[in-house]
Amino acid sequence: MKILVSNDDGYQSPGLIALADALRTIGQVMVVAPDRDRSGASNSLTLDVPLRASRMPNGFLRVNGTPTDCVHLALTGLAEIDPDIVVAGINHGPNLGDDVLYSGTVAAATEGRFLGLPAMAISIASHSPQHLETAARVAVQLVKRLRDQPLEASIILNVNVPDCPYAQLQGFVATRLGNRHKAEPLVQAEDPRGQCIYWIGAAGPEQDAGVGTDFDAVRNGFVSITPLQVDLTRYAALTTLGSWLVNCCEKPEN
Amino acid sequence: MKILVSNDDGYQSPGLIALADALRTIGQVMVVAPDRDRSGASNSLTLDVPLRASRMPNGFLRVNGTPTDCVHLALTGLAEIDPDIVVAGINHGPNLGDDVLYSGTVAAATEGRFLGLPAMAISIASHSPQHLETAARVAVQLVKRLRDQPLEASIILNVNVPDCPYAQLQGFVATRLGNRHKAEPLVQAEDPRGQCIYWIGAAGPEQDAGVGTDFDAVRNGFVSITPLQVDLTRYAALTTLGSWLVNCCEKPEN
Amino acid sequence: MKILVSNDDGYQSPGLIALADALRTIGQVMVVAPDRDRSGASNSLTLDVPLRASRMPNGFLRVNGTPTDCVHLALTGLAEIDPDIVVAGINHGPNLGDDVLYSGTVAAATEGRFLGLPAMAISIASHSPQHLETAARVAVQLVKRLRDQPLEASIILNVNVPDCPYAQLQGFVATRLGNRHKAEPLVQAEDPRGQCIYWIGAAGPEQDAGVGTDFDAVRNGFVSITPLQVDLTRYAALTTLGSWLVNCCEKPEN
Amino acid sequence: MKILVSNDDGYQSPGLIALADALRTIGQVMVVAPDRDRSGASNSLTLDVPLRASRMPNGFLRVNGTPTDCVHLALTGLAEIDPDIVVAGINHGPNLGDDVLYSGTVAAATEGRFLGLPAMAISIASHSPQHLETAARVAVQLVKRLRDQPLEASIILNVNVPDCPYAQLQGFVATRLGNRHKAEPLVQAEDPRGQCIYWIGAAGPEQDAGVGTDFDAVRNGFVSITPLQVDLTRYAALTTLGSWLVNCCEKPEN
Repeated sequence: MKILVSNDDGYQSPGLIALADALRTIGQVMVVAPDRDRSGASNSLTLDVPLRASRMPNGFLRVNGTPTDCVHLALTGLAEIDPDIVVAGINHGPNLGDDVLYSGTVAAATEGRFLGLPAMAISIASHSPQHLETAARVAVQLVKRLRDQPLEASIILNVNVPDCPYAQLQGFVATRLGNRHKAEPLVQAEDPRGQCIYWIGAAGPEQDAGVGTDFDAVRNGFVSITPLQVDLTRYAALTTLGSWLVNCCEKPEN
Repeated sequence: MKILVSNDDGYQSPGLIALADALRTIGQVMVVAPDRDRSGASNSLTLDVPLRASRMPNGFLRVNGTPTDCVHLALTGLAEIDPDIVVAGINHGPNLGDDVLYSGTVAAATEGRFLGLPAMAISIASHSPQHLETAARVAVQLVKRLRDQPLEASIILNVNVPDCPYAQLQGFVATRLGNRHKAEPLVQAEDPRGQCIYWIGAAGPEQDAGVGTDFDAVRNGFVSITPLQVDLTRYAALTTLGSWLVNCCEKPEN
Repeated sequence: MKILVSNDDGYQSPGLIALADALRTIGQVMVVAPDRDRSGASNSLTLDVPLRASRMPNGFLRVNGTPTDCVHLALTGLAEIDPDIVVAGINHGPNLGDDVLYSGTVAAATEGRFLGLPAMAISIASHSPQHLETAARVAVQLVKRLRDQPLEASIILNVNVPDCPYAQLQGFVATRLGNRHKAEPLVQAEDPRGQCIYWIGAAGPEQDAGVGTDFDAVRNGFVSITPLQVDLTRYAALTTLGSWLVNCCEKPEN
Repeated sequence: MKILVSNDDGYQSPGLIALADALRTIGQVMVVAPDRDRSGASNSLTLDVPLRASRMPNGFLRVNGTPTDCVHLALTGLAEIDPDIVVAGINHGPNLGDDVLYSGTVAAATEGRFLGLPAMAISIASHSPQHLETAARVAVQLVKRLRDQPLEASIILNVNVPDCPYAQLQGFVATRLGNRHKAEPLVQAEDPRGQCIYWIGAAGPEQDAGVGTDFDAVRNGFVSITPLQVDLTRYAALTTLGSWLVNCCEKPEN
C-alpha cells in the first residue's frame, strides 16, 4: 500500500513524524509537507508563484506551499509513487466542528479525493500533545481497515483522538460535526509605531456540542470519526430553492 | 437593509465596484475587501500576524488579509454597521463545481454564516467580463428576494451568471455542483538560476457537468444558483460508518 | 530628458504622485513602483519568485516587488524608454543618517547607478506631510541642475526637505550623514493565542547630529543634500588592514 | 569572548553550522538565524509584522525574519548574552563587488555596528561548497586576531574564501570591492495561466576586477578581506557639491 502523508504544521512537526513512522509499518510512505506552519490555510492553492521542493535528510519532501499545494503537486507529478491514499496529520490540536472549514489538515486530505480510497485527516486534541503514539496507532488501524474493507472513495474521514494513553480510549464512534458560536471579537492593538492593528479573535465556544457530535465524543474520551463530503451542495434545499426562484426575478426579456 | 460586501479579487476589482454600486440602490453598503488579488485563498484565516485596515477615498475598507479575514473582522468588530447579509463578488471568472473548495469568493460568503440571513457568492463566467451590469442586476434581485422571502439562514447561495446582456439570460435555475476531472499535471520549469520550480497545473476538465449541474446551467445561458451547506458532515454515511467501526480497531484495553 | 520614478511607499503614495507630476514639466516621466508599502526594504532583490507588472489607469506601472526590483526591471527591459536618471520618492518621512541603510527609497536610487547621471532619493521630513509641493519643487530644480551641470555619474544624492512652504526654506546645503544611537529595545508582546512575539523597536535617537550633518540641516530648515557612494570600500583602512593581516593567520602550508 | 552568529541562507545551512561549531572553540556562541533562505534580503528590516523566535534542538534561535531582523533582535533584547562581535556566514556563494549591496550576510554583519568590535561577513566562493572547513578555519583566525589586536570598531570585514583545502590557499589580502557590469536583461516568461511574468536577470559579468579587487584575489586563490564602511557619505564629493549647489536653486524667497 502506498501512502501519501502531509500536514499543515510543517515538515518538522512531531505529529507528522510520528504518523509517517507508524504508517511505514503497513506500507510505503511518501511525505510531502509544507516548509513551515500553515495552520488555518484551508484549501488555499498557490497559483501566482511557482513552488519549490527539496528533499530533507529524513526523506521528506519539503514544499514552500500550503498543505493543498503539497498534496496537489504530489498527485499531479511530484510523487515518485502513485499513492493509494492520503493521510494528513497528526495535527497538534483538535479539528472539530467549524474548525474543518479553516483546517489545512482537512484540506490536505480533501485534495486526495481523486484517488480510489477515502482520505483521512487525523488530529490530536491537544496543542502540546503527550500521546502522539495513541493517535499514530489509531491512524494505522483505520488505514488498514480502509484497505481491507473500503468505504466510498469520495469520503474524507476527519479523525480526532484524545491526548491520552491508548488503553484509556473509550472507543471509536462515528460522529457528525458540531459547531461553534460566533468567534470572539477581534483584538485591536497598536504597533510600536502607533498604527492600529487587528488580530483575528479566538474561535467561539461550542454551540452545538451535544450527543452525536465530534465535540462530545472527544470530550468523553472517544476517538471521533466524522465522514465529510467534498460535494458542498445542500441537496435537501434544491426543491425549495427551485420554487423560491419562480418569479423571483425580473424576466430576462425585460 | 445593511449589506456587507467583499470579494477575493481585491478592493480595486471592477466586479466589486459594480456590485457595491448596484446594492446601494436597495440598502446601506459596507465594503471590506483584500488589498490585492487573493483568488484561491479558500477559507484561510490569518492567525500569525495582525491585520491592518485603511479607508480608501471611495469609502471601501482595504485589509491586508484574505477574503475570510475581511468578513471575519467586519463581523467581529470592524464594521460600523451590523450587517444583515454578506454578498461576495462579483468574481471575474466562474466558480463552478470543485472550484468552490478553493474559491475565496465563496469563502467570504461562508464567513457570513452567523448572521440571520443566507449569504451569497456571485461570479460572472468570464475572466474578462463584458457584462458586469448583468451580474449586478441579478445580485440585486436575489438580495431583495432573500429579504422579502427568507430562506434558511445557514444556506450559502453560490451564483454564477453568464457574461451576456441581461435580456439574453435564459432564466434562473437551482443547480447542484458538478465536478471536474483531476487537475492537469504540474508544470515543471527552471528559474533563471537553474533551480527546478513547479507550477500548479490547470483545473481539470468537467467530469460531471450533466443536466442539473451548475456547469450545464451556465453553458446554456442560465443563471446558476447552487445552495451550499456549511456543515460538511456526510450524514448519509453515518450509519455505514458506525457499522464499519465495529471491531475495526484493537480494543483500547489492549 | 527621460526620468524613471519610483519609491518605497507604493504606487498610490501622494508623494510619488506629486513627484511624477512635477517632473513631467521638465521631461518624459515613467513610473514603476511597488504595489504596496515597502518601507524598510533596503536593497532587497526578489530572486526566488517571478514578478508581475500592471499598468494603472494613470499610466504608472505597478510591480509586486521591492523598490530595487522596480528599478532593476525597468532598467533591464521593462521600461519602454531608456531613462537618463532615476528619482525616488517623495518619501513620507525623513531618511537621515543610518536610515539610509534600510531605506527602500535610497535603494531605488542606488539601483540607477549604471546610468550616465547621478540618481536621487528625495524625502520630506514628516510622516504626514503638508507641503509635498515644496519637495516636488526642490526635486525639479535639482534634476534640471544635474542635467545642465552634471556631477559624477556614480553619485547618489540623498535629499531631505523640511515640511514647510517653499518660501520658508533656509537654503540648500551639502551635508554628511549623521548617525543614531543604538535602536530602542525590542518590544515583546503576546498574541491573542498566548504566543510570544517581538516587534523591532524604534530607531535610536540622534548621536552624531552636529554641524555639517543631515540631521542638523533639516532641523534648521535647510534642504539637506548628501552625496552617497555605492562603493562601500573603506579605502582609508586598506593599508592598516594590509599590515594587520601580516602573520595574522596560520600559514596555508600548515 | 561572546560571539553572535547569523546568516542569510537560513538556520539549517551547513555553512552556518560549520561556522558556529568552529567559533565555539574560541568563545561562547549564540546563533540567531532566519527560518528560511533570505539571500538578497540586504538590510531590510521587518517593521509591519511582529516576529517569532523558536529554539531549535541544537540550541539555535530561529526567527521568521531577515538577517538584519535576527541580529537587530539579538542586540536589542533577545540575546541572553551581550555579544562582543557579530559574525555572519558562511554564505554559500561569494559576495564580491556590487553583491554586497544586496547581500543579507553582509547586512547581518552591518547590524552589529553598535558593538565595540568590528563585525565580519564570511562567504565561500562556491554555491555548492566542498571545503567549508577552510572558511571556518579562516573565520576562527580572524576573530582571534580581532580580539587580540582590534581594528576600528565600525569596520565591517567582508571575507571571501576560495572553496579549496586550507593548504591550497595562496594567502590573505586586503582588497577593495570590484564591480560588475549592469545586470543581464530581465527574463520574461508566461505562467501556466497565460499571464506575463518577469524574473530578475543574472548579475552582470565583472567590470572592474583588476589587481587589488576582491574578484581578483579570490580568482587567484587568496582569501579576500575587504574593509567596508557603514557611513555611505561620499566625503570626497562634499566640497564640489557645496559649490554646485550655489545658485542651483531658486531662492526660497521666490
